[in-house]
Amino acid sequence: MTITTPRWLTPAEDQAWRAWLQASELLEDHLDQQLQRDSGIPHVYYSLLAWLSEAPDRQMRMTELAEQSKITRSRLSHAISRLEERGWVVRTSCPSDKRGQIARLTDEGMAFLEKAAPGHVEAVRAAVFDALTPDQVRAFGDACAAIAARLHAGAAVPWHR
Amino acid sequence: MTITTPRWLTPAEDQAWRAWLQASELLEDHLDQQLQRDSGIPHVYYSLLAWLSEAPDRQMRMTELAEQSKITRSRLSHAISRLEERGWVVRTSCPSDKRGQIARLTDEGMAFLEKAAPGHVEAVRAAVFDALTPDQVRAFGDACAAIAARLHAGAAVPWHR
Repeated sequence: MTITTPRWLTPAEDQAWRAWLQASELLEDHLDQQLQRDSGIPHVYYSLLAWLSEAPDRQMRMTELAEQSKITRSRLSHAISRLEERGWVVRTSCPSDKRGQIARLTDEGMAFLEKAAPGHVEAVRAAVFDALTPDQVRAFGDACAAIAARLHAGAAVPWHR
Repeated sequence: MTITTPRWLTPAEDQAWRAWLQASELLEDHLDQQLQRDSGIPHVYYSLLAWLSEAPDRQMRMTELAEQSKITRSRLSHAISRLEERGWVVRTSCPSDKRGQIARLTDEGMAFLEKAAPGHVEAVRAAVFDALTPDQVRAFGDACAAIAARLHAGAAVPWHR
């Protein structure tokens, strides 16, 4: 039997880790509240509309949208159903793959997003970027990208569930 | 009527923002999966046990625990009820304030936490700190602390709800 000593966090790592936990709880709560109050939708719905708005023809395969958003297929499917009910997204079957489905942003969905975007971007700027120097923005973005890349390459990614 | 041009994100800010969104989705999912698989609890329960384990006499007022964890009172109350059912936490009324409640980690709760901690810390290290240089850890921690401090001082903090 091999006894492995846990690689406990150093004081600097522990401090960074607690700051991350607190920042991510506070930020997600803050943006969810802002979007619910001003636009009537949770943050994840906004992100899905934003990804679709940037895709060619404003449409994406559901599997790609789940991977882009880093969420499970069941969570995506539930969210897209709610967005369909509001007339902001339509789902069609994929011409090249009968089992695949495509989500497309409607004109109404685009109009909604254009109305919601200024207030949301202002909230992101006030909560995040007004607190950071340009050097900090770069360092913060690089660190987040390194963490995301590592987890993205892992075996248990959410969009496979 | 004042027309205000939205302060859209610069390309560097936009890149950092997308990296944050992806890292936070992936990391929360990863740690939740790890804790559910290895210890049978969601990530937020683990954090609550960890905060209590570090407090004097392993106990905290519920209002302070909500503030420390950056979650709503209703979410805390729900989580503490589940932890009470497992015998890991007990709630008592506060001697100095009849309406206040105190949550205390039991010996069984401490034993559970000591068993779960090595695997969880290893998962955090592998997902986050193995991906970052010491300079990046510092920059990342500073940026997260600046974001958390700004939101913590805001009007609509979750632990007031």
